[in-house]
Amino acid sequence: MREMSPLQKERLNYKPKLAGVLANGINNIKLTLGDKTSSVSNQEEIKELFPNVFGQPIAKFAAAGENLSTEQKNVGVILSGGQAPGGHNVIAGLFDALKTQNKENKLYGFLGGPSGIVDGKYIELTDEIIDSYRNTGGFDIIGSGRTKLETQDQFQKALVVCNNLNINAIVIIGGDDSNTNACLLAEWMKKNNTGISVIGCPKTIDGDLKNDQIEISFGFDTATKTYAELIGNIQRDANSAKKYWHFIKLMGRSASHVCLEAALQTQPNITLIGEEVEQKQQSLDQIVSYIANIVAKRAAIGKNFGIALIPEGLIEFIPEMKVMIASLNDLLAQLEKDSSYQNLSQQEKYNAIASKLDSIQAKLFQSLPNQIKAQLLMDRDPHGNVQVSKIETEKLLIEMVRVKLEQMKKEGNYDGKFSDQAHFFGYEGRCAAPSNFDSDYCYSLGYNAFALIQAGLTGYLSSIKNTTKPASEWVAGGVPLTMMMNLERRHGQMKPVIKKALVELNGPVFSALENNREKWAMNDCYIFPGAIQYFGPSSVCDNTTITLQLEQEKTLVNV
Amino acid sequence: MREMSPLQKERLNYKPKLAGVLANGINNIKLTLGDKTSSVSNQEEIKELFPNVFGQPIAKFAAAGENLSTEQKNVGVILSGGQAPGGHNVIAGLFDALKTQNKENKLYGFLGGPSGIVDGKYIELTDEIIDSYRNTGGFDIIGSGRTKLETQDQFQKALVVCNNLNINAIVIIGGDDSNTNACLLAEWMKKNNTGISVIGCPKTIDGDLKNDQIEISFGFDTATKTYAELIGNIQRDANSAKKYWHFIKLMGRSASHVCLEAALQTQPNITLIGEEVEQKQQSLDQIVSYIANIVAKRAAIGKNFGIALIPEGLIEFIPEMKVMIASLNDLLAQLEKDSSYQNLSQQEKYNAIASKLDSIQAKLFQSLPNQIKAQLLMDRDPHGNVQVSKIETEKLLIEMVRVKLEQMKKEGNYDGKFSDQAHFFGYEGRCAAPSNFDSDYCYSLGYNAFALIQAGLTGYLSSIKNTTKPASEWVAGGVPLTMMMNLERRHGQMKPVIKKALVELNGPVFSALENNREKWAMNDCYIFPGAIQYFGPSSVCDNTTITLQLEQEKTLVNV
Repeated sequence: MREMSPLQKERLNYKPKLAGVLANGINNIKLTLGDKTSSVSNQEEIKELFPNVFGQPIAKFAAAGENLSTEQKNVGVILSGGQAPGGHNVIAGLFDALKTQNKENKLYGFLGGPSGIVDGKYIELTDEIIDSYRNTGGFDIIGSGRTKLETQDQFQKALVVCNNLNINAIVIIGGDDSNTNACLLAEWMKKNNTGISVIGCPKTIDGDLKNDQIEISFGFDTATKTYAELIGNIQRDANSAKKYWHFIKLMGRSASHVCLEAALQTQPNITLIGEEVEQKQQSLDQIVSYIANIVAKRAAIGKNFGIALIPEGLIEFIPEMKVMIASLNDLLAQLEKDSSYQNLSQQEKYNAIASKLDSIQAKLFQSLPNQIKAQLLMDRDPHGNVQVSKIETEKLLIEMVRVKLEQMKKEGNYDGKFSDQAHFFGYEGRCAAPSNFDSDYCYSLGYNAFALIQAGLTGYLSSIKNTTKPASEWVAGGVPLTMMMNLERRHGQMKPVIKKALVELNGPVFSALENNREKWAMNDCYIFPGAIQYFGPSSVCDNTTITLQLEQEKTLVNV
Repeated sequence: MREMSPLQKERLNYKPKLAGVLANGINNIKLTLGDKTSSVSNQEEIKELFPNVFGQPIAKFAAAGENLSTEQKNVGVILSGGQAPGGHNVIAGLFDALKTQNKENKLYGFLGGPSGIVDGKYIELTDEIIDSYRNTGGFDIIGSGRTKLETQDQFQKALVVCNNLNINAIVIIGGDDSNTNACLLAEWMKKNNTGISVIGCPKTIDGDLKNDQIEISFGFDTATKTYAELIGNIQRDANSAKKYWHFIKLMGRSASHVCLEAALQTQPNITLIGEEVEQKQQSLDQIVSYIANIVAKRAAIGKNFGIALIPEGLIEFIPEMKVMIASLNDLLAQLEKDSSYQNLSQQEKYNAIASKLDSIQAKLFQSLPNQIKAQLLMDRDPHGNVQVSKIETEKLLIEMVRVKLEQMKKEGNYDGKFSDQAHFFGYEGRCAAPSNFDSDYCYSLGYNAFALIQAGLTGYLSSIKNTTKPASEWVAGGVPLTMMMNLERRHGQMKPVIKKALVELNGPVFSALENNREKWAMNDCYIFPGAIQYFGPSSVCDNTTITLQLEQEKTLVNV
């Protein structure tokens, strides 16, 4: 059979566009440094934690013929955390920059994520390997992993591995946590005068690694377009068959950017945004009522169908759910030592639990469908905590909306049919073949990472800005990792972390939803984005996300 | 916000390619008729049921300047059954042919499926409407429905509606059942000398409406490519993260063509084919063991991940499941009248049921996960029957594989980790924007339907052949609907139906799977098809399915 699909073959030959300033190679650029920076907050604490890399200036490259060193260098690269489309192009860009500078330069790929550098598991990346992964999705070129680099012992082992390979710099491709760890590693390497620099690259389909300096993390563009393709197809189906309500959950636990972008691309009837739920202190019952009311209003005009988008992290944004789950964690720990509780039937267990919760929480607990109650009691993590991430939020909402509608029917406030379909999209988009935007952006990020290394910098995140403009106008530089940090409580301890970007409720992106959602609820303003295109008209192939356009341009380039 | 996506806008301007013989308009073709035909089987019975349309010759158009009538004609069109990509282009082709022949010709679209013609619900399709639906997915232009046209009363009402609109011909776009009903309508219209002809068009994403005369039904190409895109993306994810087994169920209950085509496009580790399970009389335990053995063998070489494709109809192909479900239907009807049964706990109910089944069935029943047992007892259709279609086969298999692996672990035959993800793809592909193939094929089918009408034929299915060649070489004609019929038992009665095409276990398509699946099980020969492309190189944009290539050419055009 086949070795490759026809599209795979063609995409291997795509030449990603480089940020304008880098297009003539890294010998024709000049480093300029801005003023000293500080962290997002907790400046004293962050400075104390990172005395050697704190407060560095923002770096920017300008087009000018300044020869950066061509001395032979070896670089190691790590893919860290969940997959995002374009990771292979970051590596390809890094490889091309490094080989263009000096053919003797070597790029080592650490295998299986950050553990590779600790355990000394690596391959040397060659032309042949790189050429077979250009413009492809996935992280399979060297694999990824979730090991956190944070202990002295890990750093020490990594140093031995790097010294054995004469590695001068490490590039870590990852999200907020991985780049926090990149910063710890950079600090340690500098403190110990190892001469090894550490550069990060901003990756995450979740879209929550962005700030004034980082316009977008890679993968968000391709992943949201893939989800939008599917949502559009389902909308077309719903609008043709006119008999199902589709509840579609989208990956992304800590922020609702994916859900928001997908909503702007497809214009469904209902879109829930976790950040809004939290800020408005909405209860689960309020959310269920909001959905049920739209279902009922649509039914009243003969439309027993629709589309609802739900962010994966919704449950964790509902204040009362957070409180109840915290109580359940304590309560279940006690009850499980109690043999009389163990002998109860399932229903009796629910009642026993409810009797020990305060009345508001008890009401909330009892309002949950039995299947969800059972899940809360059964699926616990190794620490005994309820696994919120395992709750099938889309099905929870369907069941609660059904109950609410039955009640409304009895009261004469609903007269319709409610047939449901549940979907969850996540794995479908994390490894899609990168869009032209992600192919170009990632290639530039990787190429630029080597420019930062050559400029002698460490503790920086590779930064490509002006990304809503054509690549020829893209700006390249670096952002000090400490600049994006603050302290947050993790597992009971205050830790330095890169601040996650949540959906801004007074920003232009959320406003675009807010200003339209009443109309979208009742009218069918569905948009059908279709599959990602790579070869067609620029309006179809080169546009980036609506989120980025609204954030940077305050308007949609392509309406 | 937007009215349309950039891709929607561009696709409206795509000019579908017409079958060569039709490319100069239907005034430059000549009808040739072959010998009389008969039905697939049950010839006497089919002939008796369709005395007026039985046995007509195969029709074929040749390029020759013979003027077909340009007399003004009105045509009605119906979309019937589940959505399939390309339906709008069938209507666009029909519209263009009809308007080219005579500007006064009118096309009426009956709304909401076959019920539209009975209830007199319709719109006149205008340039403006047609132009806004060219090359789009979905059936939303006029909607679809599942009403069966089969009673005298329906036919009589349809005739009144048609006469009021001066309709001369009806085009029914549907699958095997809808075209069976098209034939009943054609027979009735001819018997009653109404002068109204009826022409069908072969639609179904399931791929089971095909035979010597119909190479492929429309929608199969686009839908399977959409599923293959997603499977490929998930494979890339699995191969990058190396920690999940993904069990992916694909739509298609009565045949496994979708699953087989998707498997050939993506080369996953495990592919189940319902027809094989049935022919080899495989038990559920054998299927579970087959999967668990591959999981264990992969674990032994360090691969705790993989992909399994499952056809939606699997359960119904397992002989012992069919028998057990038939027994359960009888048994539950009895037990539910029994108040002592009603008072049992869930587990006691399972035991009571098992005690009344024969020992083989009881063992099978008890082997099912409790969640599935509960589903079998609870979810019953209005006739009280177990709803097999609601069983989540992918989750059933995951749970049973997990149990089997635990047992193998105890026996020392398995040493690995089994983490799972379940997916079901169906609605994601039924309304995708049609591929270039489906756009062209559908447009030709619709255009050709009007040629058949102009040639004075009725009771025919629009037929476009030679479809693995460029459209300029496509052959156009018509197949008598009775030719594809036999008698089958439906709801206890023998009925005339168009024979469904099942996967042929000795055909070239299944062989391609069979010859490779051992290799694919252990090695990761994953193919990543990527998103459907519309504008790029012909090798990427114009290839049709592997199934069709192997059936017609016995080889893959594009390896």
